[in-house]
Amino acid sequence: MTTYVKDRDDHGTTAVLGRTRAAVEPLLRAAVRSLPGGVRAVSEYHLGWRDHTGAPVAAGAGKAIRPALVLAAARAVGGREEDALGAAAATELVHNFTLLHDDVIDRDPTRRHRPTAWTVFGDAQAIVAGDAMAALAVRLVADRTEAVVRLSDCVVELCEGQHEDCAFEARTAVALAEAMTTAEAKTGALLGAACALGGLYGGAAPEVTTALDAFGRGIGVGFQLIDDLLGIWGDPEITGKPVGSDLAARKKSMPVVAALLSGTEAGAELAALYAGTRPLGAAGVARATVLVERAGGRDWAQREACVRAARALECLAEAVPDPAATAELVSLCELITRRDR
Amino acid sequence: MTTYVKDRDDHGTTAVLGRTRAAVEPLLRAAVRSLPGGVRAVSEYHLGWRDHTGAPVAAGAGKAIRPALVLAAARAVGGREEDALGAAAATELVHNFTLLHDDVIDRDPTRRHRPTAWTVFGDAQAIVAGDAMAALAVRLVADRTEAVVRLSDCVVELCEGQHEDCAFEARTAVALAEAMTTAEAKTGALLGAACALGGLYGGAAPEVTTALDAFGRGIGVGFQLIDDLLGIWGDPEITGKPVGSDLAARKKSMPVVAALLSGTEAGAELAALYAGTRPLGAAGVARATVLVERAGGRDWAQREACVRAARALECLAEAVPDPAATAELVSLCELITRRDR
Repeated sequence: MTTYVKDRDDHGTTAVLGRTRAAVEPLLRAAVRSLPGGVRAVSEYHLGWRDHTGAPVAAGAGKAIRPALVLAAARAVGGREEDALGAAAATELVHNFTLLHDDVIDRDPTRRHRPTAWTVFGDAQAIVAGDAMAALAVRLVADRTEAVVRLSDCVVELCEGQHEDCAFEARTAVALAEAMTTAEAKTGALLGAACALGGLYGGAAPEVTTALDAFGRGIGVGFQLIDDLLGIWGDPEITGKPVGSDLAARKKSMPVVAALLSGTEAGAELAALYAGTRPLGAAGVARATVLVERAGGRDWAQREACVRAARALECLAEAVPDPAATAELVSLCELITRRDR
Repeated sequence: MTTYVKDRDDHGTTAVLGRTRAAVEPLLRAAVRSLPGGVRAVSEYHLGWRDHTGAPVAAGAGKAIRPALVLAAARAVGGREEDALGAAAATELVHNFTLLHDDVIDRDPTRRHRPTAWTVFGDAQAIVAGDAMAALAVRLVADRTEAVVRLSDCVVELCEGQHEDCAFEARTAVALAEAMTTAEAKTGALLGAACALGGLYGGAAPEVTTALDAFGRGIGVGFQLIDDLLGIWGDPEITGKPVGSDLAARKKSMPVVAALLSGTEAGAELAALYAGTRPLGAAGVARATVLVERAGGRDWAQREACVRAARALECLAEAVPDPAATAELVSLCELITRRDR
């Protein structure tokens, strides 16, 4: 177990996530069931509810972190959970629509321990099912103009994040600030929108909603830093992703960028390894793993995740000063910025 | 010139489309300009406003048929054009988002006489730019819950249409009714939504909006029938698509399905040609073209387009009985169901 992993039950967050799934899933399932047959089959497969033949399965769905943030934020501002269920389901649909498209783009063969949708149904069906899920998400918040605007702006930002991420892979030099901005767009935007939507449906004032957005964005960057660490050092049994796949694909994840910019010998050797074009192979991946750590990329990412979490908590205290009201959001923040999967 | 082509200036629709572009383009350009740099560059390239280096160009953009329907519908119900400009721009964005994704899916190399976005920027960038345009479209109608619902439902239906279309290519037998349902989903849904949104922003009662939707759906199916005819007999100089590409790809477009189900000798020979797996080649495409015509597929599609147009006009008369108010919608219907590009 690595140093950035804590027992999640410390904070009761496993229970929070379980409660969230129980509260949101009926509405989420009903919404997806309203899709026409073809796009519905692909969506239900991707969400882990059915196998490729349409038979029900109980595969591991997502952790429901985004819906949990929506509901916790709604409660934190004194609102009712039931008013925010649609928004909670919407964030989960947006998340999953981006996963469907990202898997096509990255040619990832596995997601949550199962073959990705594009490997089962083909690129075309994965792309259009993702499009349909994105539209369905918006429909769930259609009753509130501010919610539609927030969610749409968030999707635009997610797209730009993915655009930049793809552009990075083709470039030799990426500044750390750029990488962080991209992380905020790719991950922070939706976690921010989740918190803001919770505030909105909980009846919060606009400035509170904005501060909740900043809280979510902060933990989003922390989340992405941890994701990048897991992409290198995560246990494939737990993460469901092949070990070392980020390095094998020469991804410029944040620990890698930090290592490349470290001015160390290990950083220079890593740069030479990344400059090659032949597949890295198992030995190359193992060497790159050592080099990122030696160049300080691992330590930096762990520290930065803590810094981001601390700043996020400041934003939260600004949004809702009462610590009793924000206890659940605080524990979600700790889970997200210290997770091992 | 084929029999289903009429001089479009007969009806003054060229002027209507020109006026629509002039009215909608400022808002459309401003909306796209609000996108972040990466997805914006791909979107502006796709829309024919910039080349791949970002330099402004005056390539032929779309015909603006959907925005024209929105504005004409708003005026037909006694509303003001300026109230419907956002909705008009939204329909053009939805249309273009689906084109971006469809081009990736179909591996089409050319669109509007230019290399498609995915050939210039790669699949990933074309997919995420399409996602961003879809989100931007919704943002433009965020002020009206009914508009968000209509546009989202329409996108879901478009996705299902594209899903079915892809599924057809893998199947040996497709019923004509299925092909028509798919045409309605792929093309009718957005033309229906365009008319309905025009009604909505023009202040029409719900039953009028619903009848306008039926009108748009009817001309949408007519539109798709013409599109299928142009995919076989259209002039590549005018359509901007390579000649015979639909047959070369063994697409089960509606004239082909009608021919396959005709019970004629020509239909049987076409079925044998389609059952092969080797590329058809120029001679095979030429032969298939003759066979579709001999089996009655061409005549059937032309007749069916007329029937759909007539039924659509009945729905329109039901929605807005005053012929003076609907003159523009009527001429757009004639343009769409008798076009040559």
